[in-house]
Amino acid sequence: MKAVILLSGGLDSSTVLYQALADGCECYTISFDYQQRHLKELQSAAAIASSTGVVNQVVKFDLRLWGGSALTDDTINLPQDRSLEQMSQNIPVTYVPARNTIFLSFALAYAETIRAERVYIGVNALDYSGYPDCRPDYIQAMQEVFRLGTKLGREGVAIAIVAPLIHLKKTEIIQLGNQLGVPWELTWSCYLGGDIACGVCDACRLRLAAFAELGLVDPIPYGEVRS
Amino acid sequence: MKAVILLSGGLDSSTVLYQALADGCECYTISFDYQQRHLKELQSAAAIASSTGVVNQVVKFDLRLWGGSALTDDTINLPQDRSLEQMSQNIPVTYVPARNTIFLSFALAYAETIRAERVYIGVNALDYSGYPDCRPDYIQAMQEVFRLGTKLGREGVAIAIVAPLIHLKKTEIIQLGNQLGVPWELTWSCYLGGDIACGVCDACRLRLAAFAELGLVDPIPYGEVRS
Repeated sequence: MKAVILLSGGLDSSTVLYQALADGCECYTISFDYQQRHLKELQSAAAIASSTGVVNQVVKFDLRLWGGSALTDDTINLPQDRSLEQMSQNIPVTYVPARNTIFLSFALAYAETIRAERVYIGVNALDYSGYPDCRPDYIQAMQEVFRLGTKLGREGVAIAIVAPLIHLKKTEIIQLGNQLGVPWELTWSCYLGGDIACGVCDACRLRLAAFAELGLVDPIPYGEVRS
Repeated sequence: MKAVILLSGGLDSSTVLYQALADGCECYTISFDYQQRHLKELQSAAAIASSTGVVNQVVKFDLRLWGGSALTDDTINLPQDRSLEQMSQNIPVTYVPARNTIFLSFALAYAETIRAERVYIGVNALDYSGYPDCRPDYIQAMQEVFRLGTKLGREGVAIAIVAPLIHLKKTEIIQLGNQLGVPWELTWSCYLGGDIACGVCDACRLRLAAFAELGLVDPIPYGEVRS
């Protein structure tokens, strides 16, 4: 069965690609150049896709037209040195309005065109951030859109959204990825675009904390690691 | 109140912009350059926006990456000379997979960022085409996505999808547009990108038939008009 996989090049979506392959899918990955802060994650997406022999499709558009997020407006500072507890208190400034809705819309268009039966997405409802477009009720709402908003859906051919990580903790995602053989060294999570990951942004801290909790070492280099 | 208006430059979306202004909204229009067959409709969108003093935002992306429609794949021929009855029988090859879902997703991102309370869209469930993403149940499903997929929605601030044409016949849309003073001469409906409208594609025929039924003359020139 064909599947479209949303691939950002981070830890979660890379695990999802490997899961989709383990599920026996013929995978078509899709990444987005939306003028985010840096292109490192797109390089990682290409490298991860390449590690599986899948050709990665990149869709380009410009979310800086209106900004509204620390990832699409350089005048909004990225949070640094926050504890996991601090991260869990509010939706952070790294929230990009409607990003997953845009991503899933393109994935739906691609899936319907190539007649893929599944769209995989690496959302995770337990990752401290509280992003609205990562929660199960949101995914359920998009599933209805997939059904009602397409010719295939109206003909009774379902395109299913698969979110295998939605109820997993970051530590469980790493354990799953280890079982699946995900090459962590090719992934990129840091919000900054330095030569190596910063170690202090929310994405780095969440990732580092999870590897540490498992007693494992994250194989990517970090510029500055604080406990 | 602020409103984001999806503006293609056609008869329907132009009427919707004028309706939103009549509703008292501060309007922000958005158009899409998705590598459709021609840029004429984008020129019309700019002209229509300009006629109201609104600045039009254009979002660019490339749906030819995967095609799947006569509007995004030049090897798929456009239907010509079809009767209204023929048009009503199947979803036509001009259907673009998930197009309205992509459009509404960008509109949602824009609306949340500028804190607009409404998104206007000119979908119409009675226009013979049977497009799945123009029907009321689909719009209702997207409304749920608007509510659950945004920070504002989760905080109880609704961004409402307004589809004022959804239950109108084309003739009724023209009557409404006449009341609102829509400058039809600036609009573009034809699927082809000639100097003047072809008169024989589905979009031209539907438009011409509606003006004729009302005993009115469509003010735009046509290259070839068949009864």
